[in-house]
This record gives sequence, C-alpha cells and structure tokens, in this order.
Amino acid sequence: MVKVPGPFKTPPSIKLDPKPLAEVPAEPLSPAQGGARAPLSASRRSEIPVFEVMQITDEVGRRRHAGHDVVSLCAGEPSARPAPGTLQPAGYTGPLGTTPLREAIAGHYRSWYGVEVDPARVAVTTGSSGAFQLVFLTAFDPGDRVALVSPGYPAYRNILTALGIHVVEIASGPATRYQPTPELLDEAVREHGDLAGLIVASPANPTGTMLGRSELAAITAWCSARGVRFISDEIYHGITFADPAVPQRDRRGVSAIELDGEAIVINSFSKYWGMTGWRLGWALLPEDMVAPFEALASNFALSPPAPAQELAMRSFSDETYEERDRVVEGFARARALILEAESSLNWGTAAPSDGAFYYYSELGPQLERFGDSSSYARALLEGADVAVVPGGDFDPVAGHRAVRLSYAAGEAAVAEALDRIIRFQG
Amino acid sequence: MVKVPGPFKTPPSIKLDPKPLAEVPAEPLSPAQGGARAPLSASRRSEIPVFEVMQITDEVGRRRHAGHDVVSLCAGEPSARPAPGTLQPAGYTGPLGTTPLREAIAGHYRSWYGVEVDPARVAVTTGSSGAFQLVFLTAFDPGDRVALVSPGYPAYRNILTALGIHVVEIASGPATRYQPTPELLDEAVREHGDLAGLIVASPANPTGTMLGRSELAAITAWCSARGVRFISDEIYHGITFADPAVPQRDRRGVSAIELDGEAIVINSFSKYWGMTGWRLGWALLPEDMVAPFEALASNFALSPPAPAQELAMRSFSDETYEERDRVVEGFARARALILEAESSLNWGTAAPSDGAFYYYSELGPQLERFGDSSSYARALLEGADVAVVPGGDFDPVAGHRAVRLSYAAGEAAVAEALDRIIRFQG
Repeated sequence: MVKVPGPFKTPPSIKLDPKPLAEVPAEPLSPAQGGARAPLSASRRSEIPVFEVMQITDEVGRRRHAGHDVVSLCAGEPSARPAPGTLQPAGYTGPLGTTPLREAIAGHYRSWYGVEVDPARVAVTTGSSGAFQLVFLTAFDPGDRVALVSPGYPAYRNILTALGIHVVEIASGPATRYQPTPELLDEAVREHGDLAGLIVASPANPTGTMLGRSELAAITAWCSARGVRFISDEIYHGITFADPAVPQRDRRGVSAIELDGEAIVINSFSKYWGMTGWRLGWALLPEDMVAPFEALASNFALSPPAPAQELAMRSFSDETYEERDRVVEGFARARALILEAESSLNWGTAAPSDGAFYYYSELGPQLERFGDSSSYARALLEGADVAVVPGGDFDPVAGHRAVRLSYAAGEAAVAEALDRIIRFQG
Repeated sequence: MVKVPGPFKTPPSIKLDPKPLAEVPAEPLSPAQGGARAPLSASRRSEIPVFEVMQITDEVGRRRHAGHDVVSLCAGEPSARPAPGTLQPAGYTGPLGTTPLREAIAGHYRSWYGVEVDPARVAVTTGSSGAFQLVFLTAFDPGDRVALVSPGYPAYRNILTALGIHVVEIASGPATRYQPTPELLDEAVREHGDLAGLIVASPANPTGTMLGRSELAAITAWCSARGVRFISDEIYHGITFADPAVPQRDRRGVSAIELDGEAIVINSFSKYWGMTGWRLGWALLPEDMVAPFEALASNFALSPPAPAQELAMRSFSDETYEERDRVVEGFARARALILEAESSLNWGTAAPSDGAFYYYSELGPQLERFGDSSSYARALLEGADVAVVPGGDFDPVAGHRAVRLSYAAGEAAVAEALDRIIRFQG
C-alpha cells in the first residue's frame, strides 16, 4: 500500500476561537456568574454524523480559495441553475451558511452591542424557526424539562412537545412585566424539578415587553449557576420604543451575549429587516454545541436558503440600518394610535408594549358580551373585517381573555382598524 | 351575551377531496393491494395545535379573495419588505405553500403521470429535507422501526435516529439492483420485528438505480397490506437514462402515487429543476396526515420560502420542461464519458446508473493501494484536485469500498476529472 493521508473528518470550516464570545460584561459579574458555572453537554440524540458530502464541499471551497483548480464530482447539484435577474444562480452553501454572512453577522454584534463574536459560533439558519428546532435538538433530549413564560410564542411549546421535551410553563403577568424572574424560576424548579433549559424573549411575543440589563443579567446568572441552557430569542431587537430613561446603548434591546458568553442567542432577518418570507435567521452557539448543531443542520436542512443569504448581505450597511430605523418609526406612530385609543377601546389591562410591534390586552368589559377572546376575534372578523389574534395560542390558561394586535401593518391600517373596532363594539 | 359565531378552528385552506389520489393503477391490483389495506394513524407526537396565527392569515386571504376589504392586525410581518428587482417583496405564505403552487404541482402529476392529485394533499416544503423531517415527525413515534436500503441517502438514517426512530438497514446489492424486494422486506421483519415505515428512492442516491413499475408495485402492495407507511423519494424523477425497452410513460420514473393513493411521495425543485440553493420541495400526503402535518409545519417552519415559491411557478411550462430536458441531455453525455472510461478506471463493480446523475462503484483493485474509499478520496483530492465522495456516508457496512461520482457538474468537468483520475492512479 502507498502511504496515504488520513480519511475525511475535516475540521469545521472556520477555526473555533477558544476565547469567550463576550467581552467583559458592562455590569460586574455576580458571584453566581463568576464562580459557579455548572457544566453542560450536547444532547445524546445530536450524536449523528455530519453529512460528509457537505463537508467535502466546504473543503473544495477552501482549496479553490487557496488557488487550486479543483474539479468536484461531489455534490448532487446541477450546474445549470435558474435565477431571477438580480440574484446569482443559487447552489447549496455550507450547512451553517456562507462565511461572509457569518462574518457580517459577527460584525453586527460589534456595531450594535460592542461584543466580539467568533464567526465560527454563528450558525445561519432557515428562519429563526430553523434555529429553534435545531437548537432544541442539539441541547435537549426527550424527557428534559424546558421552561418558558406564558403568554409566549406558541411554537416554542409546540416544537418542544413534538420533540419529546417537557414544557414547564411559568405564568407571568403585569407584576413582572410578563417576564420571568429568579424567584419565578425557583418556584418552577420546586414544583416541577430541575430544568435543562429556559427560553426568554425580549421584546416578547405576544406582549412586546422587554427585560432591562440587570433583570436579564439576573436570569442569565441564575441559569449559568444551575447548568440550565439559556436561550434568548432576540428576533425583535431593533424594533423598540424605549422609555427615555433607558440608557442609549440598551435601547435596541440588551443581548444575552453581552452578559453570558455561553448564552444561545437566536435572531432573524424577518422582523427588523422585514425579510419574513425569505426564511433566514441565525443562532449564536456555545462552543460545545457547534459541531453537533452542524451535524444536525447538515442532515435536517443541508443549507439555509442561498438567495436569502445573498440578499441578507445588504443588511448591515449604514444605509440599510437607516432605512429599517425609518420603518420602526412608522411602527412607533402606529403604536401611538393604539395607546391614544385605549380608553375608547374599553378593554382591560394591556401589557406595556416596549417593542416588537405587538399590543397584548385583556378584553375586560368586552368579555361579558363575547364570552372569550376567540369568539370576539371571530365576530370582529365577520362583523367588521378586522383580523386580530385571540390569546389562546399564546397562553393556554389565561389567553382566552386577551387578544394580540400587530401594528406591523402600519399607521393607516391601524387607524382604520381602530375605527372599525370601536364602531363594531358600539 | 350577544350571539356570536364559534371560535377559530378553521378548516384547512383547501377542502379535502375524499376521492382517492390515484386513478386506477396501470397494472391490475394484486389481492394484497385490493383486499387488505391495514389501518394507519398519524403519530402521537404530531398532536400539537396548529399555529392559529397562520390559519387566521389563511382566512384573511379567503375573505379578501371573496371581495372583503379586510384590515389584518394579525401576523407579525412588517409591510415594508426588501426584494431584489425581479421578485415580489416576500411575506409568509400558508404553512403548506401558496394555493397556486399547490395546484401547479397537482397539474405536474396530471401531465407527467396521468394521475389526478388533490392540491389539498400537496404540501410545499423547505426542500425535500423539510418534507422528510416533517413526514417522519407526522408518521412515526419514537421507538417505531423504519426500513431503508444501504447504500442510501445518509440523511434518512440520521434524521430518523435524531428523532428517536429505529432504523432498519436492508443491505442491497447488484442482485436486486440495489433496491428492496418483498423477500428482503420479509427477511427484515423476521430479523427486527414489524415495520412502521419504508423509504425507497428511485432513482436512488448514491447508486442511481431505478425500480420498474411492477417491482415498485410489489413493494407498495407489501407495505399497504401490512400497515407500513410507504415513503417514496422521487427527487430524481426526470433525470433518467432509461433503456429503450422501458415503456415511454415510465421513462421519467414511475411515481408511487400511480400505484397507491396512500403512498407518501416526496419531491424537490432542486434536482430536475436545478433550484438547489432555494430550498423548495413538496410532499404528497395521505388524507389522515394532512392536518397533523400542517400543525407541525406551521410550528416548525411557519411557511416554506416565498421567493422560491414564486420562482417555482415557472417550472411547469412547456418551455421550462424543454430547457430542463436539455440539461438532462448534458448529464447523459457526461454519464456516457464515465461508462466509456470504465475499463481505464480499473475499479470494481458499479451500480447501473439508471438516473440521478450518480455513478456508484466499488474501487476494486484500487483498494489494495489505498486501503479504503475514504483514504482514496482524500488522496485524490490532495494529489489531483478531484473531489469524489467516499461511500461510508451512504453505507456504513460496505461503503468503505466504494465511491460516488456526481456527473451533475457536466461533460467538461467529468472529462477533466476522468483524465486526472486515470493519470493519478498511474
């Protein structure tokens, strides 16, 4: 036998940098943060092989980049590919996305949050939905307990359930700004047992409420000390209507990665950047999760959509930030219309709509007429052609009393809808 | 309380048609096909609620279509959305795709296979990958046994494993054209116990081999009689190099839906249509799986990519079929180059490359020099800058002796690669 090099088990496409993701947090570490990080490991079910073809494709790219004239008979990908005029013909990319986009996302953390993020820990995904399912598969095994807040985004609960993970619902309300606190988490553990994970969204869906820096730090510290994976849904960052008392640097939302380098952060191009239908998002992963996440991604998704990745490269220019900030100003005007109409609406308690273009309110006196929010929403659609979402999707316990309005549709639509609602209620 | 209509639990966006998907199969039904269909039900884990927001969005669309001026404060979707010049600004679509695309896909079954497919049973997905994961979740619970053939597409095995489903590998070889047979299935049941599902691909990856109409019918009948979900991966249909003895109507591949209206068929815009990077595919679902699949899709993916759906609407014109058939003629020329070079390659037994732009071959005498196919592939890439895929990904048992060549790269690339390989082997 001739001497030959070893078989393919290639390193990840970008070298992992052992330095922590976050620089020094802006606030001093609590003893729990500094002292007692409990160990974590990836799920047993994520122990599947990476799809080798996608890895070899990566290696072909590296060799070409280094100047080699490589002929690839590797991927099952026709070279004749259609494309609409302004986009490149799109082929598969690496399972975690293109290197330039992963680097551009890392740059976004530098410019918005002042944090150095290793692009090797950025996984581009098929929407935040693609990130959630792969993060849940990578982090949790069947039977694990993961906590989340009610009211909250229903897909968290439903994806977790379908993957055999037990959902621990933490009932929240106005007293904690519809967000979790260490006390509520302690209570959940006493009642249900140890947690494997916690999902927090700030701004949240459906309430729009946000966590301040110190409140968020208290929760990440609680998780870190107990070996609980902290998953931060930050898809509404940038769509915020902060109180002037909030420090400038925190107004777009505080990222968990500023506070805990091991936090799992999930974000999306759908909301602030308005790319809903393109299905593109990302996750920041702790180092121990990168390789298992890549293995799952390469088998479950092959790669995130390539044309969306191409379009997303335009997201981080000054021009685009300015354009999207102007869109957010439009949301702010639509939000103001709702707040001004509150007394005419004659509903009940509403969550403080800090961000995320949502207004979540109890229906109060309207419940006496309509029974529950689902009947109210149905009657409103049929009687006045206004669509709102009943709260049952977001909160199985108390949501039948509440509705969610999205003011993403803009000022004119919101004004028209408010008129119709007030006339409909008579 | 005023009288109000019932709450939202809307019907699927398209009415389900109770008539069977397939017309009378072209061959007479065997007793097993006609007489004894064993009952099936969707998985327990698919019993999650559909994401109601996506359903209300569907209903808003229906009311607008009926002429209503609806104001929707429903979806969390900014109205200001970016788009490259030739595509519409893309928002979410229904969880199973747009109605026009689902109807166009049904039309494709009419034109290629002579089968009437109810568009309500067409689920557009994020690539065939998106279809596989959602079909597996909908059809199977943890602990179920699902059979597949080795060598085969590795993601089947890896997705199933990550979802807690037991994989039953059926070793295949030249004697059965690397495909399963009722005898091999009986043997698998004797050895491992009853199966919940079977996955078959024709043309297959990595071998390219195809099943004839009667061989495929024997397998669907075997599954139908035993209550085994039959999943037919047809993503390489249309990329075929059939023997002139094959009847004209079967040359693009026989669809399982022609033979069994309850078969699950998975297809993709990536291969014949060359839309790899866009991540768009579809599944034909039996009626009992539609609602649970929609519930999972609305939570796991929200909707398939919208720009891809827009581009895919161009797929079914005569012009596009002709254009793609010319691409397939290019694959045929590249394939011919490999077959002509077989003796110079000095490898071992190759699978008959009926379709799917793959050539899968044992390395034969080369193994004495290089040890295994993984070492061979590594040496070839480093020594001659030619990338091929070692077989271990496709076949954990015998794949270390084989490699897969994709001739999708075209005639010129294949010619150059063959020259380099032959020179490299010396």
